[in-house]
Amino acid sequence: MKYLWLYIVLLVVPGLALADPLPSWRDGASKTAIVDFVEAVTEVGGADYRTPGERIAVFDNDGTLWSEQPAYFQLLFAVDRVAEMAKADASIAKSPALKAAAAGDFPALLATGVKGLLEVVAVAHSGIDVAAYQAKVALWLEETRHKKTGKRYHKMVYQPMLELLSYLRDSGFKTYIVSGGGVHFMRVFAEEAYGVPPEQVIGSTGEASYKVIDGKPVIMKEPGIAFLDDKQGKPIAIDRVIGLRPILAGGNSDGDLHMLQWTTAGEGRRLGLLVHHTDAEREWAYDRKSHIGKLDKALDMAKADNWSVIDMKADWRVVFPYDLAE
Amino acid sequence: MKYLWLYIVLLVVPGLALADPLPSWRDGASKTAIVDFVEAVTEVGGADYRTPGERIAVFDNDGTLWSEQPAYFQLLFAVDRVAEMAKADASIAKSPALKAAAAGDFPALLATGVKGLLEVVAVAHSGIDVAAYQAKVALWLEETRHKKTGKRYHKMVYQPMLELLSYLRDSGFKTYIVSGGGVHFMRVFAEEAYGVPPEQVIGSTGEASYKVIDGKPVIMKEPGIAFLDDKQGKPIAIDRVIGLRPILAGGNSDGDLHMLQWTTAGEGRRLGLLVHHTDAEREWAYDRKSHIGKLDKALDMAKADNWSVIDMKADWRVVFPYDLAE
Repeated sequence: MKYLWLYIVLLVVPGLALADPLPSWRDGASKTAIVDFVEAVTEVGGADYRTPGERIAVFDNDGTLWSEQPAYFQLLFAVDRVAEMAKADASIAKSPALKAAAAGDFPALLATGVKGLLEVVAVAHSGIDVAAYQAKVALWLEETRHKKTGKRYHKMVYQPMLELLSYLRDSGFKTYIVSGGGVHFMRVFAEEAYGVPPEQVIGSTGEASYKVIDGKPVIMKEPGIAFLDDKQGKPIAIDRVIGLRPILAGGNSDGDLHMLQWTTAGEGRRLGLLVHHTDAEREWAYDRKSHIGKLDKALDMAKADNWSVIDMKADWRVVFPYDLAE
Repeated sequence: MKYLWLYIVLLVVPGLALADPLPSWRDGASKTAIVDFVEAVTEVGGADYRTPGERIAVFDNDGTLWSEQPAYFQLLFAVDRVAEMAKADASIAKSPALKAAAAGDFPALLATGVKGLLEVVAVAHSGIDVAAYQAKVALWLEETRHKKTGKRYHKMVYQPMLELLSYLRDSGFKTYIVSGGGVHFMRVFAEEAYGVPPEQVIGSTGEASYKVIDGKPVIMKEPGIAFLDDKQGKPIAIDRVIGLRPILAGGNSDGDLHMLQWTTAGEGRRLGLLVHHTDAEREWAYDRKSHIGKLDKALDMAKADNWSVIDMKADWRVVFPYDLAE
């Protein structure tokens, strides 16, 4: 029985392939749309077959792969960091927005509008080299807990989406993140949390400079936004970085509308997915009128463009990985 | 003899591995430096071992992977395209630089300086969507011949560098292009010529817009440079797109200096390669005083920073793939 292991492998491997790749998804239209799509594009000789090189899937991050309430988690980091900076040097809190952030006064900060928020983000994300910045993000993720759930932010990722990412990769897809979040911020946890390596994380970028300090080269994060990876910016970033049109796109807000439109308007079979936050009990419920992750026009377009709307409450057996263990 | 195939595989595979992966390279310091480096970082358990995820190699394109004389090939394309555009609409030739390009008068164009050249590049690379632009580049590459060699431009790639790219990929590396050339331009031929897929081509980018024309979304190329991937821009682009510091960098000019510095200043074993154009007979000979691909400061730094300088004339048995067949 020298080759017994071989027979075992031959018996077990097809069994694994037949097991449900999406156990946290309830049977229904969303799950069917996903499985049908993946089977169609991977069926060698089928009408919808795509080579592995063409199997590009792109996903928004905030509200699509992890939660985004009560505010984008990166914004919460920025506020905490400005507060920390202001402790060391109170003079940085020189505007209403920075003063509010330094005091941890979120309502006052929101009252300063988008301009104020961008100012806080700029200060929190500049004057530091990339490696030192990412060490600060890693420490913050480790030490900070979400006020509602009591969990670390990077544990508040969606179990069904983790299964979807794995299922796609097991089916020969490359899975990219294409998010309005900062690329340096997301890379700190994307590989561990999602299995997405640094070069498959696309995000907003700040200005940067290359400097040699004491003989050691560093990439410094500078004030100012170089590229905002949101709305029309998403297909533009996909074109610049990936250079191929994806065949699957997933998002949850009007900021993802153009990415889904760009993806699903291509020739051949395509899949657009919209995560609809319908679960006030296990997560949050919000859409057309939310100040974060507003889902309005994209929800209207979903029907005409045949995108699958994922009803979080109805379609997902569990929301977070830690719910599985409980 | 049911398992004969297995023994054949076991016998043949190590034989393939032992064959010279760089047959177009003459024995010498450059080849030794490359082979020693690759063996060191791939030796499991060795002091210099790197995981496949860390095996990132970046290469400049113009003058490093293909020729760049008498001028960057993309500039020659831009001049031809402006001439074509001016035939259809003479009013576009409204500046001395555009007039010179429209007339195919290269000396007059060069006399307009960098500003004039950028103007020609901007006009040639805008007002068209990405897919239509790339179709034009593909046609131009097919139809145009280099004045000195009589060959198609994308056939004027360096055989020894093709072998190096393959050797690295066979050794678990990801091979990236990081070039001052336009990302849309290079992607037209990079996969066929170098085996480098679209998402591993990093280059300069122009402004772009996302538009829906007659219900069909397109990415339009707009005037203006969004990012110049040269000098300090190269490590910045590597950080933004790849998010990891490469362990091998290859270039040929002062424009690559910062990329080589950034790569080789990292911890652990690193390799910097500089292609030195020393072969006036088979290719071109130029360095410190060249108007294209000036190699001056980087040549001085090579010794101190322990970069390998590749002497094209001495180190390469053949330069171009078509020399092999002749």
